[in-house]
Amino acid sequence: SYAEGMESLINCTEEQQPSSVMTNSWYNQEACRSQKAKCAGGFVLVHAGAGYHSESKAKEYKHVCKRACQRAVDQLRAGALAVEAVTAALVELEDSPFTNAGMGSNLNLSGEIECDASIMDGKSLHFGAVGAISGIKNPVLVASCLLTEAQKGKLSAGRIPPCFLVGRGAHDWAVGHGIPPCPSEKMATKFSLSAYKRNKRKMELAEKMDTGQNQAKKRRQSSENENGSGCLDTVGAVVVDSEGNVAAAVSSGGLAMKHPGRVGQAAHYGCGCWAENACNMNSYSTAVSTSGCGEHLIRTMLARECSTAMQSEDAHQALLEAMQNKFISSPFLASEDRVLGGVIVLRCCRCVEAQPSPNIQAAMVEFLWSHTTESMCVGYMSAQDSKAKTHISRLPPGTVPGQSLAIEGGVCRLMGMVD
Amino acid sequence: SYAEGMESLINCTEEQQPSSVMTNSWYNQEACRSQKAKCAGGFVLVHAGAGYHSESKAKEYKHVCKRACQRAVDQLRAGALAVEAVTAALVELEDSPFTNAGMGSNLNLSGEIECDASIMDGKSLHFGAVGAISGIKNPVLVASCLLTEAQKGKLSAGRIPPCFLVGRGAHDWAVGHGIPPCPSEKMATKFSLSAYKRNKRKMELAEKMDTGQNQAKKRRQSSENENGSGCLDTVGAVVVDSEGNVAAAVSSGGLAMKHPGRVGQAAHYGCGCWAENACNMNSYSTAVSTSGCGEHLIRTMLARECSTAMQSEDAHQALLEAMQNKFISSPFLASEDRVLGGVIVLRCCRCVEAQPSPNIQAAMVEFLWSHTTESMCVGYMSAQDSKAKTHISRLPPGTVPGQSLAIEGGVCRLMGMVD
Repeated sequence: SYAEGMESLINCTEEQQPSSVMTNSWYNQEACRSQKAKCAGGFVLVHAGAGYHSESKAKEYKHVCKRACQRAVDQLRAGALAVEAVTAALVELEDSPFTNAGMGSNLNLSGEIECDASIMDGKSLHFGAVGAISGIKNPVLVASCLLTEAQKGKLSAGRIPPCFLVGRGAHDWAVGHGIPPCPSEKMATKFSLSAYKRNKRKMELAEKMDTGQNQAKKRRQSSENENGSGCLDTVGAVVVDSEGNVAAAVSSGGLAMKHPGRVGQAAHYGCGCWAENACNMNSYSTAVSTSGCGEHLIRTMLARECSTAMQSEDAHQALLEAMQNKFISSPFLASEDRVLGGVIVLRCCRCVEAQPSPNIQAAMVEFLWSHTTESMCVGYMSAQDSKAKTHISRLPPGTVPGQSLAIEGGVCRLMGMVD
Repeated sequence: SYAEGMESLINCTEEQQPSSVMTNSWYNQEACRSQKAKCAGGFVLVHAGAGYHSESKAKEYKHVCKRACQRAVDQLRAGALAVEAVTAALVELEDSPFTNAGMGSNLNLSGEIECDASIMDGKSLHFGAVGAISGIKNPVLVASCLLTEAQKGKLSAGRIPPCFLVGRGAHDWAVGHGIPPCPSEKMATKFSLSAYKRNKRKMELAEKMDTGQNQAKKRRQSSENENGSGCLDTVGAVVVDSEGNVAAAVSSGGLAMKHPGRVGQAAHYGCGCWAENACNMNSYSTAVSTSGCGEHLIRTMLARECSTAMQSEDAHQALLEAMQNKFISSPFLASEDRVLGGVIVLRCCRCVEAQPSPNIQAAMVEFLWSHTTESMCVGYMSAQDSKAKTHISRLPPGTVPGQSLAIEGGVCRLMGMVD
């Protein structure tokens, strides 16, 4: 019955850009692959978290997605590489007090903010990540700096530069590389502090009730309450630049009331983000960013799995199957009753058939999002668009979060002069 | 010329157990697969690091491998599950002052010990990991405890238990779960302290020489010195228990002179260890543990790649190709001149043809190791053996570490009564 329910959840976004078209069979129309497509100007897709977005906060989420897209496109228009543009989008998403990343992140069990972030460059296939970092306003800048430094080659005395730093060491490395520290108390918001107090009370109450009772049973029951908390709003972005390079990034404050030192998928290779340019083995350049319950996303390695799936001809079907078989029904999560997460995905290739003239090249960017959480807020924009489109995708009423999924997407054709 | 050189490096261990046989085509003889094989008593394969093992220290390394095998087999004989036996082996390996794990770990840039460890259970597919943890003698016990706790289900108020903790938070969680703290100064050895002083001088000298010169060039040159330091001795083990469940674990003090907070492959999902029982999709139960340069092992996700490869019919050929295509020639390490690492691999299935009688079942355990480092020290033992076999595998003279590989292995047939 799950598989039957699936089909009805599939729908396509109707908010199309002038540069975008979408039909039920758009993925079949252009079976035109190439090593790497020039993507005149480039394209960005961002999200402000898979979780629960109340109608009252919808406007704010859409706003921050719009600004993040604009930031990335500004970079792309100035000739930046995908990895720089994706960083710019993430900084904007982190700076919003409404998202669970950077400013306004969830507080942990001790009332502190510890953030995870990572970035991957599809061109060099380098990766940079920070975990459980405190006192840095934009964790993505540290991940990005780690990636840049690693690309420079070995350190003195043949030491290999790190790609993943955590905790105090990550903070000190960041400051040593010119990233300014930020007092932790400035990163908390009225909202995150009141959520902390509320969660603390809830926890104490739950633990009181547990005393002397069947704890396994209680644990199960209490899990029913976990939705509606809106605490999964990890942010992320995927970008293709005008040269056809892809990049992906992700940033998160982690689960509310997590244990200090807990690191989620946002800092985990293959789990939080993935980006791979087209090459001999891969027909498409792909970029993926994930959001949701970190432990579920780690154990399913969802970012990499979705990237691998996107090499199939039919992107929509491939993502649907990946979300169903590699996430909701994953053998790695057999004991979980609800599997909460979402992804944004981008892939691109050259359009051979659609070339209007020999010195104009067209590239096709396919972009999709899918989630098992109640909602997911996304934004997208090409460098040829005047402004970003935003959308809050929701599971249809009556479906169960963690057991059903929504999938939507679009396609954008980018025309540009060949050098 | 690399591919040509490969064949000549392939050789098989001659130190065979009474319960082991090895021929050039042992992998073809028994194409007998099953869901999960009963492995009468079980089997363990351990390593004390892929790196450089001087003849003078060879005896000590072999000794600790022998003891680790014995510990695991003691557990197996007492009816322990694979995940418990692999933990016991790791504790022994960590406790040795000669290995770069637990006691005697490499010191970081600040002269501190920070350890990584992880464990995976092929039965539940659960995973537990700690990164950059200080003041805990046996980091694998914390990883193991995280795994056990996660299997119990959700925490109070529906919170999802962590699978990966780092730094101070990991230490405090461990102590809160009954794992005793250990003063950091007790974990350093005379050897690790003198290596730290030597490395520090070498670094300062290298940095002095860099001043005012072409730094990129210097960086490249200085990398020539990095071998012979013997600083890659991460430890690990793979186990199959008598029920046919597999488990894998890994523990490391990390690279010498690493930046504080640096986390290597030993704490990274899919990179340090992997274990998967046979299931509908996988004919073989497989377990893998890796050693070497953490950044290389992370970016290639070597543990998981080797596990996937081991589903091919010819285990030896599959591991050879995985080490060649997914590690040495990996597109993820295109910019690296030397790719340093090693793996131990185990897989098992039921032997249908070799059943001597209806109430006796035979299982076949294939075990292999492969490395691009100068040497790798391994030990292995079945529950039917009286003592462990140990071996130091070396690259043939004249080959270049990081560009060539050695691969060896054996097979062990286990007979047992069917319940």
